Amino acid sequence: MTTASICTIGDEILIGQILDTNSAFISRALNKSGIKVVHIASCSDSRKDILDTLKRCLKSSDIVIATGGLGPTKDDITKNVLMTLSGSKRFKRSRSQMEIIKNILTARGIQMLDINRMQADVPQNCTVIPNKIGTAPIMQFHFPKEKFGRDNLLFSMPGVPFETENAVPNVIAAIQAHYKLDKIFHRTICTFGIAESVLSKMIEKWEDSLPENLHLAYLPNPILGVRLRLSIYGTTQKEGEEELDKYSASLKQILGDAVYGEGETNPQTVAGELLLERGATISTAESCTGGYVAHLLTGIPGSSRYYWGSVISYDNSVKISTIGVSEKTIKKYGAVSRECVKEMAKGVRKKLGTTYSISTSGIAGPSGGTPSKPVGTLWMAASGPKGTVTATIVSKSTRKINIERFAASALDLFRRSLIAGKI
Amino acid sequence: MTTASICTIGDEILIGQILDTNSAFISRALNKSGIKVVHIASCSDSRKDILDTLKRCLKSSDIVIATGGLGPTKDDITKNVLMTLSGSKRFKRSRSQMEIIKNILTARGIQMLDINRMQADVPQNCTVIPNKIGTAPIMQFHFPKEKFGRDNLLFSMPGVPFETENAVPNVIAAIQAHYKLDKIFHRTICTFGIAESVLSKMIEKWEDSLPENLHLAYLPNPILGVRLRLSIYGTTQKEGEEELDKYSASLKQILGDAVYGEGETNPQTVAGELLLERGATISTAESCTGGYVAHLLTGIPGSSRYYWGSVISYDNSVKISTIGVSEKTIKKYGAVSRECVKEMAKGVRKKLGTTYSISTSGIAGPSGGTPSKPVGTLWMAASGPKGTVTATIVSKSTRKINIERFAASALDLFRRSLIAGKI
Repeated sequence: MTTASICTIGDEILIGQILDTNSAFISRALNKSGIKVVHIASCSDSRKDILDTLKRCLKSSDIVIATGGLGPTKDDITKNVLMTLSGSKRFKRSRSQMEIIKNILTARGIQMLDINRMQADVPQNCTVIPNKIGTAPIMQFHFPKEKFGRDNLLFSMPGVPFETENAVPNVIAAIQAHYKLDKIFHRTICTFGIAESVLSKMIEKWEDSLPENLHLAYLPNPILGVRLRLSIYGTTQKEGEEELDKYSASLKQILGDAVYGEGETNPQTVAGELLLERGATISTAESCTGGYVAHLLTGIPGSSRYYWGSVISYDNSVKISTIGVSEKTIKKYGAVSRECVKEMAKGVRKKLGTTYSISTSGIAGPSGGTPSKPVGTLWMAASGPKGTVTATIVSKSTRKINIERFAASALDLFRRSLIAGKI
Repeated sequence: MTTASICTIGDEILIGQILDTNSAFISRALNKSGIKVVHIASCSDSRKDILDTLKRCLKSSDIVIATGGLGPTKDDITKNVLMTLSGSKRFKRSRSQMEIIKNILTARGIQMLDINRMQADVPQNCTVIPNKIGTAPIMQFHFPKEKFGRDNLLFSMPGVPFETENAVPNVIAAIQAHYKLDKIFHRTICTFGIAESVLSKMIEKWEDSLPENLHLAYLPNPILGVRLRLSIYGTTQKEGEEELDKYSASLKQILGDAVYGEGETNPQTVAGELLLERGATISTAESCTGGYVAHLLTGIPGSSRYYWGSVISYDNSVKISTIGVSEKTIKKYGAVSRECVKEMAKGVRKKLGTTYSISTSGIAGPSGGTPSKPVGTLWMAASGPKGTVTATIVSKSTRKINIERFAASALDLFRRSLIAGKI
C-alpha cells in the first residue's frame, strides 16, 4: 500500500501557539484516496530539524507532505532547506505564481515588496503547483529510489490552513498521476445523545460479529456526537461497499433515532436539510449558547434560504422586551427552566415569523448554578406548528465544550421532534 | 535543557477524523515551564506502532506525554501496551479513580458497567494521578537511565481534550518535582488589522537589532490577528524579563494602536475588559457573522456583566422588524452597506438599551457578491453615546475564516473607536 507522512514545520507548533489543523485535513484526503498515513510529525524551524525530519519521513514512506515555513518573513526557511535536499543549484521564478501574488496584493490594497516577489522563487529542481489563493506556491519534488530507498514524491505547501485546504486536491491529483493506489473504504455512522460507554454496550454483540478486515473506531465530539467509523481493507470497491452496506444497516437498526446521518455531516447540516425538504424556516432564541446555535446554522453555505434570524437574550430584560417571555415565568421558575425555554421558543417563532424555532437557557459555567440546577444544566425547546417539545441535559465540561454540546443538543432535539411529528 | 516529546495515539488522528488539539495545549504548558518540546508524533492504534513510537520518544527526550487510547472500548489498547513497556505483571485498581468514575456516572444517570470499572485498573508499576473530570486515570511511569538511556518520565492521559487540559497542571507539577528545569521566557504582542508582510516591513530594522538569543515568530490567525512572539533563551528570569520589556516596548511604539494586548488575550477579552472598566454594556446586531460576534463575547466567563444580547438579522425582514432598519435604506444602498450597518448598530443599541453596540453585514461566501461588493466584503459599525463609526474590509478566505475575521474585525473596530473617544 502506498504510504505517506505529514510533516508540519514551525516552532509555533512545537511551542503550542498554533493548532495543527492541516495534518487532519491532509490525512483525511490521503486516506480517502487509498494512501495510508503512517506518521505525522512536527518539527521546529531549525535547518537541521527540518532536514532530519524530512529525510526520516522520505525513508519511511513513499509520499511526504510538508506544510509551513514558506511565509515572506525571516523565520521561514523551508525553501532554503529544500534547495539543499533536492540538490538544486539556483532558484527559478514561477511566472504563474507571480501573477497570482500581484492580483492578491492589488485586491488587498497592499504594495508589492521584494519579500512578496521572492515568494514566487522556487528551487530549480521542483515542479510548481500554483497556489491560487495565497502568495507562496506549492512545490513538488521527485526523488528516485536511489536517493532515499523509495520512489518518493515530496510536496511542500504553505501552512496557512485555508491555503493548504485549497492545495490538497491538486496534490492528490499529482499523486494519482504518479502512483497506482490501493483502496481503503470508510463508512461513518453519526449518532447523537448516547454516551460512548452505553453505545459500546449496546453494540457489543454486533461488534463481535465483524470480520477481521473490518475495523471499528469511536469518535466522540461535543458537536458531532459519537461517530462510529467502519473501515474495510483489502477488498475491491464493490465488495467493500457491500460489506459496509451490510454492517452499517445492522448497526443503524440497533441505534434507532440516535443515528442522525452518515459520513461528513453534522447536526446543523441535517437540520438545514430537513428545513429545505419542507420549504420551512427557523429562528432561534438563545441565552446560554450566546449565538452558537445561530453560528452553527449559518456556517452552512446557503443557510439564508431557511435561517431567518435569532434573538440572543443573555440578559433577562432582553428575554422580556424582545421575545415576550413573561416576567412572572422568570420570577417563578427562573430563566433556566422548562417554562422559560418554552416561552422563548414560542416567542421568537412568533416575533420572527418562522415555521420552527429552537431555544436554549442554561448555565455554561465555570461558576454559577445551584444544587438543583448545577453548572452544565441546559433547558432547551423546539417549537413548530404542531407543538413545543422541551428537554434538559447536564454537561460536565469546560465552558467552551458545554456551549458546543448545548447548541448541538438543541439542534438534535429539533431533528428528533420534527421527524417524530411532535412540532 | 530538559526535553519532551508528545505522542498522540489513535487511528482517528492518522485518518484525519479528529483534530489534535491536545499537542498544542500540552506543548504550550511544557514550554512555559522551561521544557523544550522536540518532537510531536502521531501513531496508530496498533500495538507495534504505539510501542515503537513511545520507545523512540523515550530515547530522544527526557519526558514523554502520551494521550489517547484509554477509552472504555475495544479499540483502545494503550494500557495494555504500557503493561509491556513498564514490565508490569498485573493490573491494580485505583481506589481514588474508582470513586470518581462512580460519581461521574451517577451524575450523568448512566449505569455502571464492567467496562467502566475496568477503567480504574492500571499497570502495577505506575503512579496514578486521579482524573477528576473523566473516567480514565492519568498514569505516570518512571524509567531509570538503564532502560532507554535517559532518566525518563512517561505520562499517559486520556485523549478527550478537556480531560487532557485538566490533567496537564498535575503532570507539570509531577515533572517539576522530578527534574531541575531551565527557563525560557516568552512575550507575545497581539496586533490586529495589519497584514503579515506589511508588519514585517514595518519592523524590519527593529528585527535586525534583536540579540542572537532573542527569537521572533509571526503567528497569523483570523480571530487573533498577527501575534508576534518574542522568546529569549539562556538568561535568568530577571535578565530575560528586562530584555523582553525593552524590545517589546520599542516594538509597540512602532505598531501604535494596532497592538491590542499582550500574551494570551484576544479581541473579545479586550472588548470585555474595556466595558468592565467603564461599567458599560454592549449588544450586537449581526447579519453575515450569524451570531459569531456574540459567541466570541459570551465565550468569556462572566460576560453576562456587560453583554446583554443580540439580534441576528439574517433575513432583511428581521433587520426591519426587530431593530428598525428602514426599508428605504436597504432598497437604496443594499443590506451590505455603510448606511445599513449604521442603522443596525444604532437600532440594536436603542432596542436593547446598552451603552455600546456593534453591527456587521457582509458576504461570507462562497457564492454571492457583485463586482462592487465581492464575496468577502464586510461592512461593520460600532456605536456609542459619542457617535457611530463604520468601516469595511475584504477577506479572501473560506466562509468559515471570513466569518471569524469579520467578527474579530468588528470587535477591533469597537476597541479602536472606543479608545479614540469616537463612540
